[in-house]
Order: sequence, then structure tokens, then C-alpha cells
Amino acid sequence: MNANPKFLNATAELDPEAVKTFPKSRKVYVTGSRPDIRVPFREVSLSDTPSAFGAEKNPPVVIYDTSGPYTDPAAEIDIRSGLPELRAKWIEERNDTERLSGPTSTYGHQRKTDPELAELRFNLMRSPRRAKAGQNVTQMHYARQGIITPEMEYIAIRENQRREGLSELLLKQHPGQNFGAAIPAVITPEFVRDEVARGRAIIPANINHTELEPMIIGRNFLVKINANIGNSAITSGIAEEVEKMVWSIRWGGDTVMDLSTGKNIHETREWIIRNSPVPIGTVPIYQALEKVDGKAEELTWEIFRDTLIEQAEQGVDYFTIHAGVRLPYIPMTAKRMTGIVSRGGSIMAKWCLAHHKESFLYEHFEDICEIMKAYDVSFSLGDGLRPGSIYDANDEAQFAELITLGELTKIAWKHDVQTMIEGPGHVPMHMIKENMDMQLKHCDEAPFYTLGPLTTDIAPGYDHITSGIGAAMIGWYGCAMLCYVTPKEHLGLPDKEDVREGIITYKIAAHAADLGKGHPGAQIRDNALSKARFEFRWEDQFNLGLDPEKAKEFHDETLPQEGAKQAHFCSMCGPHFCSMKITQDVRDYAASQGISEQEALNKGMQEKAVEFVKKGAEVYQKA
Amino acid sequence: MNANPKFLNATAELDPEAVKTFPKSRKVYVTGSRPDIRVPFREVSLSDTPSAFGAEKNPPVVIYDTSGPYTDPAAEIDIRSGLPELRAKWIEERNDTERLSGPTSTYGHQRKTDPELAELRFNLMRSPRRAKAGQNVTQMHYARQGIITPEMEYIAIRENQRREGLSELLLKQHPGQNFGAAIPAVITPEFVRDEVARGRAIIPANINHTELEPMIIGRNFLVKINANIGNSAITSGIAEEVEKMVWSIRWGGDTVMDLSTGKNIHETREWIIRNSPVPIGTVPIYQALEKVDGKAEELTWEIFRDTLIEQAEQGVDYFTIHAGVRLPYIPMTAKRMTGIVSRGGSIMAKWCLAHHKESFLYEHFEDICEIMKAYDVSFSLGDGLRPGSIYDANDEAQFAELITLGELTKIAWKHDVQTMIEGPGHVPMHMIKENMDMQLKHCDEAPFYTLGPLTTDIAPGYDHITSGIGAAMIGWYGCAMLCYVTPKEHLGLPDKEDVREGIITYKIAAHAADLGKGHPGAQIRDNALSKARFEFRWEDQFNLGLDPEKAKEFHDETLPQEGAKQAHFCSMCGPHFCSMKITQDVRDYAASQGISEQEALNKGMQEKAVEFVKKGAEVYQKA
Repeated sequence: MNANPKFLNATAELDPEAVKTFPKSRKVYVTGSRPDIRVPFREVSLSDTPSAFGAEKNPPVVIYDTSGPYTDPAAEIDIRSGLPELRAKWIEERNDTERLSGPTSTYGHQRKTDPELAELRFNLMRSPRRAKAGQNVTQMHYARQGIITPEMEYIAIRENQRREGLSELLLKQHPGQNFGAAIPAVITPEFVRDEVARGRAIIPANINHTELEPMIIGRNFLVKINANIGNSAITSGIAEEVEKMVWSIRWGGDTVMDLSTGKNIHETREWIIRNSPVPIGTVPIYQALEKVDGKAEELTWEIFRDTLIEQAEQGVDYFTIHAGVRLPYIPMTAKRMTGIVSRGGSIMAKWCLAHHKESFLYEHFEDICEIMKAYDVSFSLGDGLRPGSIYDANDEAQFAELITLGELTKIAWKHDVQTMIEGPGHVPMHMIKENMDMQLKHCDEAPFYTLGPLTTDIAPGYDHITSGIGAAMIGWYGCAMLCYVTPKEHLGLPDKEDVREGIITYKIAAHAADLGKGHPGAQIRDNALSKARFEFRWEDQFNLGLDPEKAKEFHDETLPQEGAKQAHFCSMCGPHFCSMKITQDVRDYAASQGISEQEALNKGMQEKAVEFVKKGAEVYQKA
Repeated sequence: MNANPKFLNATAELDPEAVKTFPKSRKVYVTGSRPDIRVPFREVSLSDTPSAFGAEKNPPVVIYDTSGPYTDPAAEIDIRSGLPELRAKWIEERNDTERLSGPTSTYGHQRKTDPELAELRFNLMRSPRRAKAGQNVTQMHYARQGIITPEMEYIAIRENQRREGLSELLLKQHPGQNFGAAIPAVITPEFVRDEVARGRAIIPANINHTELEPMIIGRNFLVKINANIGNSAITSGIAEEVEKMVWSIRWGGDTVMDLSTGKNIHETREWIIRNSPVPIGTVPIYQALEKVDGKAEELTWEIFRDTLIEQAEQGVDYFTIHAGVRLPYIPMTAKRMTGIVSRGGSIMAKWCLAHHKESFLYEHFEDICEIMKAYDVSFSLGDGLRPGSIYDANDEAQFAELITLGELTKIAWKHDVQTMIEGPGHVPMHMIKENMDMQLKHCDEAPFYTLGPLTTDIAPGYDHITSGIGAAMIGWYGCAMLCYVTPKEHLGLPDKEDVREGIITYKIAAHAADLGKGHPGAQIRDNALSKARFEFRWEDQFNLGLDPEKAKEFHDETLPQEGAKQAHFCSMCGPHFCSMKITQDVRDYAASQGISEQEALNKGMQEKAVEFVKKGAEVYQKA
């Protein structure tokens, strides 16, 4: 097996930086009702509280983990063979699919039989599955039949985040304001089933993506984020694309969209999916456009259909499809500041104008549903007419499309095809809620999946921040998934550090939204980290953070190692005041006197003052 | 005059990076009713719209400018002599102040007569002014007497941002939602006077800070930001501190707080103020603590009083004073997760506990007012009991202090002392509005000045972002000034790049808030930038942004210079679709037919389709 160095480095090794375990962390698994339901988490170990603060043990904190087997030292990784097919048995047991002899799309068949591409495939080609005739294999279909699938049980375990054994202090949280969402204290498999059945959540899980660690997208679950990979270079190392995916999920990407164009896009995608523990999304019109050499007017329904089948048989979990860019809406963009900024939207607009016909995506929507339901690919109904500037926010074109997406959702649901709705874009703060309200109303609570929104246009170079603000707000209002934006938005292709920055920003937005909603258990991590901060357990503070490496690096920049345990900084002031010690003194005093803490505080103040001065008036404690 | 290299580099030159003009920008001045009212702005020149998009001229856009004379090539800068005393005449004309022979504080006098410090002073020592006996020299006092000062007129010009001569397209903006604020379409000097008179805005403008370019902080004006400088090193170059101030205002700091500790803090502050075009704030208790070698319990009212006078006579424009940390509130912090995180708050708490007495700041508050009104120093009533973790947000201690700050505001206003109120901290999204509502209610609409708030604790290393989200939201709700947070928050001292990152983040938050409030004229910059983006005027897009250098640098990283004008990127899609051309085609068609645009659109669609294909179906335009 010769490795063509143009496409693959000789050893197909992943960069160690992308897979090393996080500090003081280990991969743990929670097993469900059957041994092959094993849900991964990251468990962060913490040091003991110093005696000055009460000397107690701090149990480990368990964190939702998107990084897959890559951060499990016990896993054997060979990206030329792909990840273990952990869902294969679940799918086989359902006995409603058949294994095909090979790809059924024209394009897929061409690629497979092309001898020159053999070296790109290694051990990765699987025979695809498809629903048996007359069968519908979507998670929504099962849910509506009252069936709780292993995927649903897996998800219930995952969303609960293992809160047993934690102190009341850590579990305490603010009630939140979730604008009418209905998040239970404990997520059960039955709750998952019900949410999927009613379309309020989706489980993107193509039957051909057996390597997937299932996850859920919905308003009543943890807010999720998506990272984008892929590029438009003509030659790009396939292993590089796999590494981008691994890097994205390391930092917290819940799904990844592969937006590749160029040559060998099919093989590149195969490698990504075979090695991805998270759902993979694509925009099939991009590849369809490549097949007609970039001439949008030459697209046809048949080419597009073949592309859908090709990608579905590889295991793509969701398709962005811009079926809402309808002919009569295109003139509405004439009065905009930034026209149509969506590539898929502009491709369809061009086609419609060239043919003066209604969009073939719109006209063939039910044909598309027939394909989706045979593989369980979810819709991400694209916002081709999203606003690309503050000026265009919430305009006629945007909402016309949204209303159409609502109609299409109803059609998709007739076929039990799982559906989420894409959203903006560029929206000033005061107009964000209207987007959520309109979407809830017109799309019957199907999950919303936005790009930001950016709350101002004036900061190219910092659009992860302009959009992080809007994303946090719309997540709080009910948006289920947030598509990340990197510092390179509008300017160029993101590098690894941009991807990290974008992901961490969006993890912040998603988590801030969870806190705002009062999502049960969301505040545990904040509490644990703040407790560590207050007790000057610096390493614990870093390790509980979203980016332990950066936190430690920043800290060590200006504080020498030995001084670090004594030093306390924040740019306005320093957390020297050890009220925890006073708390402890007062608590000890109360215990010794057999009285309540409040009485102790009242009584104790005067005595304490005397004692305080005698003890050297030292509130500043050495850790 | 020997320059001691420990404190001053030999040439006292500022780093050219800190003072170079922005691209395609020049300093312009708008003159008021008298020639010495000359208000600076930055004017950004734009290139012409390419013919493909309609070939028009784009008038320059004028931007609010905090960077002072440093970015005016015509200005002669010598930091050893300070900036021009542009307010001196205004103050002299009021004839209600007297020039003192020297500092009246004990400490100030000591420093001035110490021969070893001579080399630190150069040409910077001025004889301070103070109100004549029985006079009150605050802007609030003048405002309440119906007087419109030159400072107020200056500010009215500044806040209007020069919107004349712009197209309807650029001026168009969304109405906004400002929660009951009252922002007029045009700011008049009378409006400024009225806002100051009623305490809803402050003009921090010590009579001894004659170099100041006046600015205003209030809910009905542009949202402002503060940057912090100063450090705790024992030796630090004084020129370095001046440079930090210049760097901060370059990127957009509206005020700067000098939080220095250590030796020569007095001289360092002198250099900063003499060279600062923006208001300077301090926390006097820090220097008072240094005078008692860090032993909080040895603080006395007399030492603090002397410090207030010392700093007021140098020209500090506002003092953070933690007069709300009252003895009975301290036990309320016992049940917190992170106790008292404010350094000033912890210092006062320690003092109160050591003496078992009420805070001397609280008890002597009216004595403090007497000092403030003699120099026009504004209060920034400190939030010593702000929450330092999500867990502690909006707790009893925090709001008890806020209510006290409201009482103290009323006392300050009895003396016509200008007052703003400091705020949190760490607050989850859904609890932010309550802070604004409580503050408006209890503090009679005095301006609010918050630190963030951080919307989650889990991202040390990224707290400019966790707090930027909360800052944008509370700015939208009515907060008047936002204190920046850098990526180094909780971890260490920020370097220059951290300061830039923090300031840009907070400019984003403030501007997003202005857009949310529908502040008249706020959307001009977004519109102009988006127009440039859509027309592929790349340089204009960069130059209108908050950080033109970074935008250009990011762009040039991946796009070669010659290809740049043809290349279009954004991480999800590319703005290839040139609907502006279709708009133009349709408009041209309408004009030729003498019909309205909408009719043209309807009529034109079919004809356009035919024409479109004939023309080569090229919607993708080359710029």
C-alpha cells in the first residue's frame, strides 16, 4: 500500500498536540442498560482544599466530552481504518436496513471503481446500508412509534453529565429564565424519545455513520456548537482534514461541517466520517456545483439527487439544503446593503434567475425526503437569505424564507425526517429575540441553528466576539445549536489557533446560555472553578476551565512558579480577602457555643474584633 | 537634568506604534461658538464605488476619537512638558478658583520639596487650583444654575459625531429598544446641561486637569469604556506608564484608571495626568494603604483625607471610593463562594473588623464631598461587595451595598458632587437586567459603571469574552460605562496586546449596545463598512473597522495581494452573489421604462431571465 505523499503523510499520524489528554483528566465511561451503551465523559481530578480554608477533599468533576477516543489513552487509533463501529449492532438489530453491494449513486460508483483512487481509500470503504423497501429508519420514526433506541438512551446518560456524589454547594444554582422551555431536572430516555417524536429535538445519526457517539440538538438539552472544516485548495492532505476534525472536537465542537471543495472531496469526506465521533454535516450543493465546473445554471435535480445519495451512503448526518430560496423572494434582496451572502443561497438564486423557474430544491422537496428517510439524514434547512449586515437584519427576504422553511418542516415531518432550521447572520441585539420568536412560531419548535448572530459589523478581525455576544443571547432565548465564527471571518481561512479561539468563544456562548436558562447541572463547573479560585488551587482553576493550557500559560507569563501560590491578581484588584477564613472562624465559634451561625455572626462580631487584632489582624492568608 | 534611567528613558519618546495615524485617516476639528472649543474627530477617507456597483463617490466617515493629540501629526508632543492646557482659559474665566502656591496635602508637599525627586518632575509640576472659599466648582453645580459651560458645548459637538453630508443609505438605521432612555436625535449643549443637572450624566473634569478633552458618561450618550493601567512593580519606567495610557486611548479607551502601587506613585500619576486627554480615575485607598505599609487596620480618616487632597490637586477626575462597604454587610459575605474580590472592599472590610466600627468612608462621606466639590472630582461609588463568581451573583451583600450607594448619591447631590455607581462582576445572563433595574431605582438614574459582568466563570484566559457578552447586554439595558477586562483577568498582568484585545472587545460591547438602543448615528459605521465589504473595497472595510491593522493582517495572511481584489471569503460561504448589480440592472431598466422599481422587478423578472442568460449568466462579478 503506497501512500501518495500528496494526499497522506507516510504514517497517517495525528499531531500529538491534538490528542494529548487534558491535565488531571481521564476518560471515564458510564454504561447503560446494555454493555455496548458506554457513554464517555472527561473526569477532572481536583486537589484538596488547603487547611486554611477548611481542609476538605474535592471530588472530581465530570464534564461532557466531545473529543472521542482520541483522548482515551486506552484506545488504539489508526485513521486509515477508522473508529470502532459502536452503533453497528444497534442498527443491525433493528433489521430494517439492507447492506448494499456498493454505492448506488453514479458518482459514488465511479469513484469506487477508479483504480487511481485506490491508495486514498486504505481500509476505509464500507458497504453502505439503506432502508429496506418501504421502511423508514429515522430516529423520529422510531420515536413516534414509541420506541426508545439505544441512541436515545445513550443521549440521556450523556446529557445528565453525571451529577451524583457532588456537594450541595456545587449543585446549587440560580433558577434561570428559559422563556418557556421545559428542561427536566433529570433527562430520561423517555424524555429524549418524546422530544424527538415531537420534532423539538433531532439526533443526527445516519445509519452509515456507525462510528458516531450519539448526541442531541434541541432547546431542552445542552446548547451545542458546530465547527467548520474543509477548504478550497485543490490539493490538501486528507490527513490534515482529519486532524482539523480531531482538533475541533478536542476543544468542544459538538458537530463538524465539512465544507470542502476541490478534488478528492469524496475521499476526503470518507476519511473524516470514518474517523469522526461527532455528527458530520455538509452542504451538498457545493459538491454538485463542482460537478458542473462552477456553472450554477447547469445544475439539475438529477445531479443534485445523485449527490445526496452519494453523501448519504458515506454517512453524512445532516445536509444543509437551501430549499427556502424561492424565485419570488430573490427580488426582495434588491434593496439590501449586502445582498445574498450565503454561497448556497447565491447558487440557487443564480439558477432560478437563469431558468426563471422555481427552485428545484423547493419543487423536489418530497423527493429529497424520500432519500433522507432511507438513511436517516437530518435536514438543516438553509438560510440562504440570511442578512449579511446590520442594515439587512430581519428584513422581508429573511422572514419570507423562514416562513417557507416552516412549511417545509411540516412536509419533512410528514415523512418523519428530522429537521433543524438555520438562522442568521447579522442582527443587532434588540432584534435577536424576534428571530427566536418568529422561528418558534413558524417552525413549530424545530431546533434553531444560527451563525452568531453578529451584533455589529464594525470589527473584522474580531467577529468571533461580535457574534459570540449574539450567539449567547439567542442560545439563552432558545436556540439549540450555534455555528462558530473565527477571528478570520470575512477575511480569510482560519488556522488552528483561529479554530481554537472560535470554538472556545462558542463554548462560552453556549454555556452562558445554559446558565441563563438554568439548565440543571450547568452551574456545577462554574461553582467548582470559583471554589478552586477562592482557595488558590491554581492548577484546579486552570484544569476546570475551557482551555487549561492557555490559562496556565497566561498565569506563568508573569508569575514565577514558586511565587504563584502566594500571588493573587486580577486586573482591577486582588482576591486577598479571605472571607472563607472568617466564615470558618465564625462557624467554628458557633459550633463551640452551640448556637446558630447568624447568632454567632451577631454575637461574634465584637469578640471577633478583639480576637482579630490579637491574632495579628491577618485576614490575608498564606495559602 | 539627569534622566535616571530607572525611571525614564533618555529621550522620553513614545513608541511610534502607539502614535502613528490610522490608515486613510486624518484628525479633523469642529469648532464651536468660540475658537478655543475645537473638538477632535478621526476622519476616514474612502475610495470610490467600482463601476460594476454603480460608480459613486463615498464621502469620508467621521468617527469619535479618544486618541488625543498623539495621532495629530500637526501636534508637537513632549511628554516631559505635558499636553496643551486647553481648558485653562475656561476655568480662569469662571473666576471661582484660586491658584495655590503649592500642594496643600502633607504628602504632596513632602514630595515636592524632596530634592531627590526633582529629576522625575521635569516641566510637569503645576501649581494646583482650588475653589475659592464658599465656591462650588462642579459641572453639576454650574448645570443646576442654568449655566452651559464650554465643556458642555464641547461635549454636545463630540456626541453628535458629525453626521452632515451623509447619504440616506448610510443614515438609515433600526429604531432600537432603549428601555425608556431618552436619547434625542441631535445632542444640544442645553440637553447636556440638563442631563448633568439631574445627575443622569457626569462630566469628569477636575479643574486641575486642564489638558482634558471633555467627555460625558450617561445613559443618554454613547456608551463609554474604561481601560486600566498601572502595575505593582516597585520600579517601573514612568514613560512606560504614559505609553500605556497613550496605547489605551489609541484603541478607544474613553477614560483610563491608574491603579499603580509601589514607589513614586505620585510622580507617575503626575506624568500620566499631564499627558492625558481623557479623564483619569484612581482608587485613593490603594495609595493610602501604601502609606501605612499595607496594614489596613492602621488606616485613618486623616491619612485618607490627605490622599484625596493630594490626588485632587494633581487633577484626578474621579475617585473610586468604597463607602458602601458597611460593617453590618460584611457578615453577609460569609456564605459566599468567593467572598470579597474587590481590593478596596477587602481593605475596608479588614479595617471595619479590626476596629469593630463603621467604615470611616461612610462616616466621613460629607467631609469627602467638601473636598470633591472644591476641585470637581466625581465620585465613582465603589462596588466593594460585588460578586466574584456566578454563585454569588445578585446576593444580599451586593444589593445591600447598592442601596447604600443610592443613599450616598443623594448626599453627594446635596453638594452638587457628580456621581456614578460601580457595578458587577460575575452575573449570569438572566440576572443582568435586575442589576440595571435595581440601580436605576435606588440610585435615581445616576450613571452605572460596571466591570463586565462575566456571564460564566469557566473560561480563564478568555474573560474579555465572557464579560464582553454581559457588558454588551448591560450597556444595552442602560449602563453608561463599561470597565474593560483583558484575557489576563484572574491570571496575571496584561501586556500591550492584551490591552488592545480588551479594549477592542469593549468597544464592540459598547457599540453593540449603542445599536441595540438605536443611538442616533450609531449605525453609520456599520452601514459604511458593510457597503465597502459588499463592493469589495477591502481597504475601506479594514479602515472603517475597530482595528484596521489586524483586519488587514488577517486578510493578507492567506490571500496574495494581487488576488485579493478577486477573492472573496468567509468561513461559511463567499459573498460572490452580486445582487447589487441586479439591483442596478433593475433600477436602470425601471428608469428607461419610466416605471417604479417594484413594477420593474415584477415586470423585469421574465425579461431579465432571457437577458441574463444571453449575457453569459454571469452573476459572479469581477470587482
